[in-house]
Amino acid sequence: MTNRRIVLAARPVGVPKPSDFRLEEVPVFSPAAGECLVKVHFMSVDPYMRGRISGRKSYAAPVEIGQTMVGASVGEVIESNSDRIAVGNYVTGGLGWQEYATAPADELRVVDASAAPLSAYLGVLGMPGLTAYYGLLKVAGLQSGETVCVSGAAGAVGSAVGQIARLHGCRAVGIAGGAEKCSLVTEEFGFDAAVDYKGEGFFHALRAASPDGIDVYFDNVGGPVTDAVFQLLNVRSRVAICGQISQYNAIDAPVGPRLLWHFITKRIRAEGFLVFDFREHDDESLAQMAEWVRNGKLKYRETVAEGIENAPAAFIGMLGGANIGKQVVKLAGD
Amino acid sequence: MTNRRIVLAARPVGVPKPSDFRLEEVPVFSPAAGECLVKVHFMSVDPYMRGRISGRKSYAAPVEIGQTMVGASVGEVIESNSDRIAVGNYVTGGLGWQEYATAPADELRVVDASAAPLSAYLGVLGMPGLTAYYGLLKVAGLQSGETVCVSGAAGAVGSAVGQIARLHGCRAVGIAGGAEKCSLVTEEFGFDAAVDYKGEGFFHALRAASPDGIDVYFDNVGGPVTDAVFQLLNVRSRVAICGQISQYNAIDAPVGPRLLWHFITKRIRAEGFLVFDFREHDDESLAQMAEWVRNGKLKYRETVAEGIENAPAAFIGMLGGANIGKQVVKLAGD
Repeated sequence: MTNRRIVLAARPVGVPKPSDFRLEEVPVFSPAAGECLVKVHFMSVDPYMRGRISGRKSYAAPVEIGQTMVGASVGEVIESNSDRIAVGNYVTGGLGWQEYATAPADELRVVDASAAPLSAYLGVLGMPGLTAYYGLLKVAGLQSGETVCVSGAAGAVGSAVGQIARLHGCRAVGIAGGAEKCSLVTEEFGFDAAVDYKGEGFFHALRAASPDGIDVYFDNVGGPVTDAVFQLLNVRSRVAICGQISQYNAIDAPVGPRLLWHFITKRIRAEGFLVFDFREHDDESLAQMAEWVRNGKLKYRETVAEGIENAPAAFIGMLGGANIGKQVVKLAGD
Repeated sequence: MTNRRIVLAARPVGVPKPSDFRLEEVPVFSPAAGECLVKVHFMSVDPYMRGRISGRKSYAAPVEIGQTMVGASVGEVIESNSDRIAVGNYVTGGLGWQEYATAPADELRVVDASAAPLSAYLGVLGMPGLTAYYGLLKVAGLQSGETVCVSGAAGAVGSAVGQIARLHGCRAVGIAGGAEKCSLVTEEFGFDAAVDYKGEGFFHALRAASPDGIDVYFDNVGGPVTDAVFQLLNVRSRVAICGQISQYNAIDAPVGPRLLWHFITKRIRAEGFLVFDFREHDDESLAQMAEWVRNGKLKYRETVAEGIENAPAAFIGMLGGANIGKQVVKLAGD
């Protein structure tokens, strides 16, 4: 059996190019003791991966040239050498950009394929959903009645942020790029307002959408969008810094207005976080998210690319905002 | 009796000029019911005053043109219409830049003139000392064994920050401008290291002075100094944002490297604060500070200008770093 995988061919400079990636065909490895062989159905492409291929020092070691791209996937166990996980189980884990993956059972989470479509475990019921949940509830310390603003509001994380905010009695203001995404943010995800950062008069529209100012800002994008939000932050507001996707492809060190003065006059608290920091709460948090999804209180969208060979293009497009909702790549399944 | 006071004559553009201020002679007002008349011995000039005269929206209303400059003073009560405060008491309060002030007794704090020189109640035993104390202990959540870096280390706040850090078992690294201030920081204030931000190789010297990185950054200055510190912040570090003095005279909105990406990879928490936010703790905090001063564990320095007519120059000089320790203006007394 042959496994197709995507390896890093070159460190991207600026916007990643298809030639920074290479498709390889290799044999499928049988699982050793305690391992499973997984046939991947869906793999995830996420903004954080841009950092992992930059070679810049960060919270995790970079992907080296020639290594398989990292990332979460969901699929079916087709061979098992583990007592804990059986053939036919569906699992998620950090399996990388490949069609078949051999992994220790300890690093896999069994998911309920009857409760939600498999791909949801890469989005609203996976890392992006947990990121939204922890950022609002553990980092920002959301209080009922507050105004929550989130950038990247039509994305996997942002769309969940606004809905969770509303489930906690807050006003949700979403920032997204373009009329189509903005419609989705209000009509499908139920935000109170959506503001198009590509539109004329963005700042004035954002101010109009936030008549009581902004108490919590969930930042996925950074850059000029975030500069605008800082003008509207209230006294004792909190900023959960989740991502800075507008800056990830920058070649030179990004420059912008200095923001720290705002912190003093408004007593702003800002905190960066990683979803992994809250791992101990994953079980209960995922149970809560799954209940909301089941009850129709938490909706999600996906953009699905097909075939491992299209993963680089899906990733590159996602960095530029081409996706709506969670960007996944379908490798197998119905 | 004649009172001399300094009023704001014009809104400064950039670095304040002497002509932005005007000396006025007015009658001394007798205290009404519940009020005291205070003969000021020392008045304070502080960085925050630059914000108060800018006309920019902030946490307090700006000083209007023609109004007496705001600020804290310490002096002797020479007439009293209050049961609580007697003639001969020494008091501090927000009395403004003037030689005589009439103020409600409720807004005055009686100080012990035998326990410390009067001027100390404007510095280490006043607002600047409390600012250091709260920034480290209430905002940054200092832990024993950490490395604390403070900018403006030879100033009223910064010199206290490093000493309080050391009293809590921390390594104190101070950043100051010039060899004289740096010597004072280590030799008089007992910091573990001092780094001259005006010197060549500032960043490398700061890194060498912080071999285990920086866990807490107490920021008084902002700008390029702060940019350098951010490079050295540890995972889960905290930034207490107290001041941004390097930016206060900026005419155009200051621009610099974007810092928010650091927050994510290092899970940095940054929080701006104002000393007034912790007012309920002032009595116990000042008692602690006074004990440290009495025991020689907390040292301070002052730069003293003489005469109300020299207050504007003292203020302008302080904004440019001309002072060492607390800048005060002596108006009366021995």
